[in-house]
Amino acid sequence: MAEDKMKVVAKDKPGPGLAYREAPIPKPGSGEVLIKVTAASICGTDSLIYDWAPWAAARFVPPRIIGHEFAGEVVETGHGVTHISPGQRVSAESHVFCGRCLQCTTGRHEVCRGMRILGVDRDGAYAEYLVMPAVNVWPNHPDIPDRWASLQEPLGNAADTVLSEDVSGKSILVTGAGPMGLMCVGVARACGASTIIVSDPNPYRLGLAKKLGADVTLNPVNESLVDTVNAHTAGNGVEVFLEISGAESAITDGFSSLTPGGRASLLGITKGPVGIDLNNLVIFKRIRVYGITGRKVFGTWHTVSNLLASGRLDLDPLITHELPMREFEKAFGLMSKGQCGKIILTP
Amino acid sequence: MAEDKMKVVAKDKPGPGLAYREAPIPKPGSGEVLIKVTAASICGTDSLIYDWAPWAAARFVPPRIIGHEFAGEVVETGHGVTHISPGQRVSAESHVFCGRCLQCTTGRHEVCRGMRILGVDRDGAYAEYLVMPAVNVWPNHPDIPDRWASLQEPLGNAADTVLSEDVSGKSILVTGAGPMGLMCVGVARACGASTIIVSDPNPYRLGLAKKLGADVTLNPVNESLVDTVNAHTAGNGVEVFLEISGAESAITDGFSSLTPGGRASLLGITKGPVGIDLNNLVIFKRIRVYGITGRKVFGTWHTVSNLLASGRLDLDPLITHELPMREFEKAFGLMSKGQCGKIILTP
Amino acid sequence: MAEDKMKVVAKDKPGPGLAYREAPIPKPGSGEVLIKVTAASICGTDSLIYDWAPWAAARFVPPRIIGHEFAGEVVETGHGVTHISPGQRVSAESHVFCGRCLQCTTGRHEVCRGMRILGVDRDGAYAEYLVMPAVNVWPNHPDIPDRWASLQEPLGNAADTVLSEDVSGKSILVTGAGPMGLMCVGVARACGASTIIVSDPNPYRLGLAKKLGADVTLNPVNESLVDTVNAHTAGNGVEVFLEISGAESAITDGFSSLTPGGRASLLGITKGPVGIDLNNLVIFKRIRVYGITGRKVFGTWHTVSNLLASGRLDLDPLITHELPMREFEKAFGLMSKGQCGKIILTP
Amino acid sequence: MAEDKMKVVAKDKPGPGLAYREAPIPKPGSGEVLIKVTAASICGTDSLIYDWAPWAAARFVPPRIIGHEFAGEVVETGHGVTHISPGQRVSAESHVFCGRCLQCTTGRHEVCRGMRILGVDRDGAYAEYLVMPAVNVWPNHPDIPDRWASLQEPLGNAADTVLSEDVSGKSILVTGAGPMGLMCVGVARACGASTIIVSDPNPYRLGLAKKLGADVTLNPVNESLVDTVNAHTAGNGVEVFLEISGAESAITDGFSSLTPGGRASLLGITKGPVGIDLNNLVIFKRIRVYGITGRKVFGTWHTVSNLLASGRLDLDPLITHELPMREFEKAFGLMSKGQCGKIILTP
Repeated sequence: MAEDKMKVVAKDKPGPGLAYREAPIPKPGSGEVLIKVTAASICGTDSLIYDWAPWAAARFVPPRIIGHEFAGEVVETGHGVTHISPGQRVSAESHVFCGRCLQCTTGRHEVCRGMRILGVDRDGAYAEYLVMPAVNVWPNHPDIPDRWASLQEPLGNAADTVLSEDVSGKSILVTGAGPMGLMCVGVARACGASTIIVSDPNPYRLGLAKKLGADVTLNPVNESLVDTVNAHTAGNGVEVFLEISGAESAITDGFSSLTPGGRASLLGITKGPVGIDLNNLVIFKRIRVYGITGRKVFGTWHTVSNLLASGRLDLDPLITHELPMREFEKAFGLMSKGQCGKIILTP
Repeated sequence: MAEDKMKVVAKDKPGPGLAYREAPIPKPGSGEVLIKVTAASICGTDSLIYDWAPWAAARFVPPRIIGHEFAGEVVETGHGVTHISPGQRVSAESHVFCGRCLQCTTGRHEVCRGMRILGVDRDGAYAEYLVMPAVNVWPNHPDIPDRWASLQEPLGNAADTVLSEDVSGKSILVTGAGPMGLMCVGVARACGASTIIVSDPNPYRLGLAKKLGADVTLNPVNESLVDTVNAHTAGNGVEVFLEISGAESAITDGFSSLTPGGRASLLGITKGPVGIDLNNLVIFKRIRVYGITGRKVFGTWHTVSNLLASGRLDLDPLITHELPMREFEKAFGLMSKGQCGKIILTP
Repeated sequence: MAEDKMKVVAKDKPGPGLAYREAPIPKPGSGEVLIKVTAASICGTDSLIYDWAPWAAARFVPPRIIGHEFAGEVVETGHGVTHISPGQRVSAESHVFCGRCLQCTTGRHEVCRGMRILGVDRDGAYAEYLVMPAVNVWPNHPDIPDRWASLQEPLGNAADTVLSEDVSGKSILVTGAGPMGLMCVGVARACGASTIIVSDPNPYRLGLAKKLGADVTLNPVNESLVDTVNAHTAGNGVEVFLEISGAESAITDGFSSLTPGGRASLLGITKGPVGIDLNNLVIFKRIRVYGITGRKVFGTWHTVSNLLASGRLDLDPLITHELPMREFEKAFGLMSKGQCGKIILTP
Repeated sequence: MAEDKMKVVAKDKPGPGLAYREAPIPKPGSGEVLIKVTAASICGTDSLIYDWAPWAAARFVPPRIIGHEFAGEVVETGHGVTHISPGQRVSAESHVFCGRCLQCTTGRHEVCRGMRILGVDRDGAYAEYLVMPAVNVWPNHPDIPDRWASLQEPLGNAADTVLSEDVSGKSILVTGAGPMGLMCVGVARACGASTIIVSDPNPYRLGLAKKLGADVTLNPVNESLVDTVNAHTAGNGVEVFLEISGAESAITDGFSSLTPGGRASLLGITKGPVGIDLNNLVIFKRIRVYGITGRKVFGTWHTVSNLLASGRLDLDPLITHELPMREFEKAFGLMSKGQCGKIILTP
């Protein structure tokens, strides 16, 4: 490989699959930095792109290097970058926000109206190097290893989901024990939730949920979610419902499991519109519902970094596989079978 | 009429209609008070009972005196009542709560699990006298006339809907300009909302909305709700969406009209489950949704009483009719045609 | 001892000391219950009464049985008590609130304007039996042993202090490591605080702080509080300052240790007015300050009970002594020397 | 005057007074804009600089053009400025924040640790032209005239003071009726506060307070603040206390006037440390205290702009004088005598 070339994982044309190929090492422009990637992790969104799911077909324009969760080291800084230096260990906020819209000027960068997403709208992190705007870069804490640092981005989603309101001493239901649901379990446990109930049809992932701190796990195909929740909450239902699965039955059963006056946070993406009995599930019970996307820039990053650096949250039970990036096919296979927690790829 | 008899409006058997008849004057039991009614107002729920709508047929058990919004004067107190005296001008919280459940012991009486509703589960206020638990009684402020005092109960619903979060300087959309929507307009205007947009197919009620402080009104049958909102919010959408209509189209258009990061409060009862595109309307926009029923006991009563007594909110434009109670048929006719704001009945 | 007599610890006349003597077993009145005490714990307030400190001399009127933290079993119920039965294991909210004032009717019972305190304004729990209003009684969770259950009352103070705002992932300074400060450390650790720094001149209690989860302890007589905080927070100061000591120097140094935009909660009672540089310590740093007394009735009790029953918080390191009630002199001696955590007395 | 010269008001050397003189028209650097000033307003801080008060002597380094509240028109943009164009009507956030510190990266720019203040740390707005970083510029709403637009900066302080928590239906005490206190009155009235009580020894300013919406005004030299508050709040005290005077007696009396569970916001700068009876004024009453400085960038600007553009808040009663900038001596004289509301200077 020539010195100005690097290896990347990219979607080169519409349809399933990804290519492992060479690409030019990018150059940081004004206000940008070049980062050498040391760890990148796989998100459910990456699987959608790999599979060329309807969302990807409608949204993604090849060719594009994918990947948006990573850790690495700054190797070069562009014009006007003064607060970041080569040699710094960093991760980055994957949502490249405009800074000008109503949302950005009121501290809601995570719903910026001109947002461009790393690995979707600009070349991503499944590569030896990537370029990021300096304002998106997050200096990693010295006590957080790179394989954890790469997970700060999705962990931020989980933290905003769990912590939409304080969970101290509150009972919690998490529907969906994929990597994001598992992170929610870990955050909830670290932040003082009392009874933590997790529902998923996948026994392997329920096992991971236990390792991350779940008190009760159940397979909703075999057991009644509502009955299980009532059995573990003295018939009151849970105070907090975290929806991570996107499944209509989980949404209905989860809201049914909430105690009147409780709170729901929705992170799971549904396949389409969902029928909801608003009267009985939301209005008559005075439920508060929080839609969650992204994470606060950088409020949530501080929270997540502090939880990891202080040892309150251990991510090792979540990281089930670490693979060289060229074995990405194996990684996406594990994802599609649900036989993994988080997978770390190393360039 | 014998001295121990009184005139009442009651539902005596399943089916449409109500009876105007005599009934014994009730006696206050231990911890209860007897109140002479001076003003009672009509709620949409009363119309559902009058019409014997599906909700009423499923929930209401005749015979029962109806009505749950009122003002009056205490005439007798039962055993153990020490803080209320005959002669006091009062209204009352219509939700008779148990005081023992998880909800009651955590300050969420409005979603008490053992709640019994005045005029539905116990005899109501369309009568010359009614009995209430003393803990439900609210002393009326001397500067608030009885025809306004009777409206404190529904105004409390409106206040909790509008004030789920502070509205100061925020743009607001209200879908549905029935009496409850009109009250929301009044509260929003009194509490510092900036642009107030109201949507309803009924031109008469849009006229009332203007009188109560709406800046923009529209008929969604003729005009695009989303376009109108964008035209009056520099293309950003509103910060606050108050859903009072229960109509599926209003729910969809209202959420579509919200700016990312905005807030919705849902008070309108729907006809059944509603299809919602959670991804695009709630999750990707990070919307906060509040289901609203009842009002805080008595936090909201203080708010509402203060707004009225200080003159910040004028309810006269809302009160379009005052009728003797025996003309209840006329009143329900106006309600069914939507040719009224609030109607006050006088025993 | 006659069958209708019991042993109690009481303050019988002004001046230091307490008496261990007989008293009649009280009878529950209407709405009250009689409780057999199985465990009672010592609060700093009890020490003030024992010592006849200025606060006690000004406030306390002998003769009076003291003690307000306890667990026990209901043995008899008065007229009108329907939701509590003999045989139930219970503790109780020690603040006997009026239920009528502005504060009580807006969910702020902890600052009721007609409050009467157990063991101060009515006979208390250092006795074989005591009488409580049924509305103050808290049913104890079956998984919480009595020696922990007795601590729910002060633990509620600590929980409200720590959780005035969410502490997840936030750095915390606690000034004062007496029993109340130690409880704050335990709650903060259970609820996801990151770096926990504790300051106290008493090395014994700093040792207990470590056992309850403190990361850093310091003696402010020997070390600079501000420097220590800066050294452990990358020079930023802490996000949260919990003041439990009542010492003027701790107040000044604690506010100085806060990062701009941080939060302080004040529980420690001062000896008198305190000089505060509001400009530099509060205003220019935009600090939020919460005065804390009592605990939410019963919101905080639910939180505390859930933290204990779910095993998130272990109180055993805090309970350094369990003594028969007749050895109260020894207990107060340990308190005055600071050579204890919490002390449990058994009748 | 040469074409590249402009007239300015500047502090050229230590000591009282200001100079009216020529200065070079500045050039916008990279990321900056040049603005032609059309209106500038006088803040209490400017008076401190004029008078060379202790704060100014300790903080201000001459020579420096002063003034930090203004409106104007962009006339030139520096390198890299893409979202602002010549011809735009603008004001600006006067706090030039670093964008990098813990505070800036968590949405707390108003307490940025590297903040430089317009008219104090860099040349200000009492000039025909000034240069501002483009990220600080606020586009003015077409419906807001320049003399109001200049007031958005201090109005933001007032809005953050009033709206630390929702004021809808709440009673309010404002101590201090200088321009900032008067703005608090206007915001509180616009945002639904019920009884508004204002205290100040200056009868002229109490008159202005009435015009801006105060219900009750009092001179604390002649009347008891606490008694007046109790008389107008049924003996309960106010729910909200806004301290704008910086006077120790106002601080003590204001906290004494708060109902238990109430809220205080502190904006007024004190002359030095203040003695506060924390036990009785804050802790036993569970008061929440908010220190206020600056305003949210740009959340508060949106709030303030919306209140003005929608006509909810009328600033004309507040603007008592409009003078040419060269008559600044007259303006500062009015300020020192307290015979003015807000004064607008026109270059």
